[in-house]
Order: sequence, then C-alpha cells, then structure tokens
Amino acid sequence: MPTLVLIRHGQSSWNLENRFTGWWDVDLTEQGVNEAWAAGEAMKAAGLDFDLTFTSFQTRAIKTLNLALEAMGRLWLPVEKDWRLNERHYGGLTGLDKAETAAKHGDDQVKLWRRSFDIPPPLPEEGSPWDLAQDIRYKGVPIPQTESLKDTIARVLPYWEARIAPELKAGKRVLVSAHGNSLRALVKHLSGISDADIAGLEIPTGQPMVYELADDLTATDRYYLSERAD
Amino acid sequence: MPTLVLIRHGQSSWNLENRFTGWWDVDLTEQGVNEAWAAGEAMKAAGLDFDLTFTSFQTRAIKTLNLALEAMGRLWLPVEKDWRLNERHYGGLTGLDKAETAAKHGDDQVKLWRRSFDIPPPLPEEGSPWDLAQDIRYKGVPIPQTESLKDTIARVLPYWEARIAPELKAGKRVLVSAHGNSLRALVKHLSGISDADIAGLEIPTGQPMVYELADDLTATDRYYLSERAD
Repeated sequence: MPTLVLIRHGQSSWNLENRFTGWWDVDLTEQGVNEAWAAGEAMKAAGLDFDLTFTSFQTRAIKTLNLALEAMGRLWLPVEKDWRLNERHYGGLTGLDKAETAAKHGDDQVKLWRRSFDIPPPLPEEGSPWDLAQDIRYKGVPIPQTESLKDTIARVLPYWEARIAPELKAGKRVLVSAHGNSLRALVKHLSGISDADIAGLEIPTGQPMVYELADDLTATDRYYLSERAD
Repeated sequence: MPTLVLIRHGQSSWNLENRFTGWWDVDLTEQGVNEAWAAGEAMKAAGLDFDLTFTSFQTRAIKTLNLALEAMGRLWLPVEKDWRLNERHYGGLTGLDKAETAAKHGDDQVKLWRRSFDIPPPLPEEGSPWDLAQDIRYKGVPIPQTESLKDTIARVLPYWEARIAPELKAGKRVLVSAHGNSLRALVKHLSGISDADIAGLEIPTGQPMVYELADDLTATDRYYLSERAD
C-alpha cells in the first residue's frame, strides 16, 4: 500500500507576525524548529518510514523536512526540492501584516483574497522590497507575480503527476514537506474537496497528515498523526 | 572554470573522544555545528557559490552540508547523497578509542593500520555492537567488512567519475561534504599524491578546501579558504 505523509512547515517568523509570506523566504521560529523535530519523533513513534521525500525551494519547508528526518534517523533519505511545491505567491500582499492589509485594502477585500478560489491578490507595487527577480534560486523559473489558489493548484498538480504520483504507484513511501496552499492543492486533489470549500481548510503547522491510499492513489483515509496518538 | 570545494564534516562526538568511527553514524558536536556554520559563512564571504552538492549517507557530513548551505542562503540547492562518499570502514577497530586499540593490538600495529595505504584493519568480531547489517540505509549496498585506504579509493573514484566529474566538466560549481578518507581519495586523484604520502595528509574538520581546475579537471591550485582570509 502506498504511504503518503504531508507536513506543513513549522511556525515561521511571519506566521508569528501574521504577515503574508508567500514566496518570501522567511525562517522557522524556535517554536517552528521544535514542531518540526516533534513531527519527526511522532512519525518515528508511529512506525512511519519513507523511501524518498519532496519539498519546496523555501527554507522553512526544507528545514522542517531536515529536522524531522534527523529526528527519525533518516537524514540520509533522498530529498527532491522543487519550486512548484512553494507557497502560493501573495503578490502585492507579500510582507504586509493583517492590520496593514486591512488599512490599505479593507477587511472585506482581504477576506476575499484569502478565501476565494480564483481571485489573485493585487500585483506587487513598483519597487517592492519583496521582489524575487534577483533571487538566483529562481533562475529559469517562471516566477508568478501573484497567484490565486487556483493558480497555485495549476502548478502543483503537474508536479504531483510527474514526480510524486509515479513513485507512490511504484510502492515508494513518500513524505512531502510544503506549505499551506501547495498542500491544499494536494488535499483537494486527493480528497476531492470542492473549489468552494478548499480555501477554508486550515492545515496546522508541523502536524504530519497521513494519507491511506489504494494502489491507484484513491484516498481511503486521511488523518493527522496527532489524532491517533495515545 | 569549474569550481570544486571539498569540506570534511565538522568535529563529531567520536572525533572528540578519539574513537575509530568509520561507517558508524555519530553526530556533530556543538563545536562541529559551529564549524559547519562558519564554513558556510566563509564560503559566502569569499564569493563562492554552487549549483549542486554531494555528500555521504552519514549524519555528520549531511548536517555539515545542510548547516553550511543554510549559512550561505543556499539550502534550496540540490543535494545528492551516496554511500560511496562514506568514511573508510574501520572494521574491527570501529568504536575503539586510541587507548583501547593500543592495549588490544599494540601501538605499532595501530600506526600501520592508520597510515598504510593498503592494509585493512582486522575484521569485526562476532557479535560486534557496531554491525551495520540491520541499518536499512544500506539495504542493497555492499557494506564492506573493513577497508584499507586503497579500498576506500576504489569505491570513491568510480562515483567521482560517474556523478561529480561530468557535472564539473559541464561547468557546474560543486560542493562535496564528506570524510577524512573519502576526501583523501579525491585529493590523491586530483593532486596526484603518491600512495606513500596520501595517508599522511591530514584534512582538518570544517575547513573548505578550494580546487582550481582546468576544463579537463586538471588541478591548477588547491588551498584552504582559511589560508586566503583577510
């Protein structure tokens, strides 16, 4: 039976400050580091094990993976990093905290951007300090200017089909460390969640989410490891 | 011009205790962690950058790489892990400290094992606590029972030729985080050091060693970054 575990990175500094992060590369907080380590310990205690792992190009997801693998004694497992597992790009909202965003755009508009399926945030302003064009990690990558959840799904799923699903079908046990919205893309696909409902699905940081899959990758169950702990 | 930097892992707990480690998977000490981070900072300050990285299956080398990459802001770079970059396997000496080894085998014999090119240490004793046969990371790997430096070279160089040299020839900038003896294998090959001299070459922990290479990978210079610091 294919094994798939998804984990959203531990708390980041901008999770803590309640700022829109998206593709900006912030670090884990100390709590985030602890969450990642605890996730690894919990997976080990549950007898979970993996053959290969996937993560994004972003420090918070990579570190979460590395810490969890270290806690499991599995630092030697292969890790594939790809920008297509990155967080949703929040465009002109990047870097703004909740209060700044509400003051600038109004509460209703912000709620719409956060919770709609296909409405992208505004484009970044000219001269934004959060511009990624000079970040060499994205050399050759079609960096989005802004993304709706729908846009995010449109780049996550081809990666899933090309790189992750074939490994699962070959019987490999897979761990994916990624972000709120890139994981929503996978959960929507695997669990058949509607366009209307997926943006409302809150995936907590640092909590391993276990999928039980049939050989054709139909999901038969989905649960957080913490729900099954003693 | 191809760029190659080699780094031996930071101080490990058994470096500190002066025990033969080999394939046993010990962690970095706090000093080792600091060395790894400082190595990353030094490489960044020197303007070194990489396209891809290689390391062994052993925690101390993988963590050294991850910490150095994080210090450089390059955690997103590809990392290829392979057992053929592992430390020399010390056979029956694994786990013994200097005093235990001398008491058991005599100083002269120990010096011979440490410094000879082609004499492997004794085979592990029956029921050795340092047996790796149950370590799933080595499933499918021809785990050696013991290795001379010559044996180590015989598995490092084919990996170099198959995986690392082609990337360098294609113009990629490469960082290798490995071990005293797997790095000796590379230095012997690149710098043409004799069988008689190579075992005497001490590579310090956590010090980036920079190779300047011609397009055909002939070494034109080799130096430690610390030798060029202001």
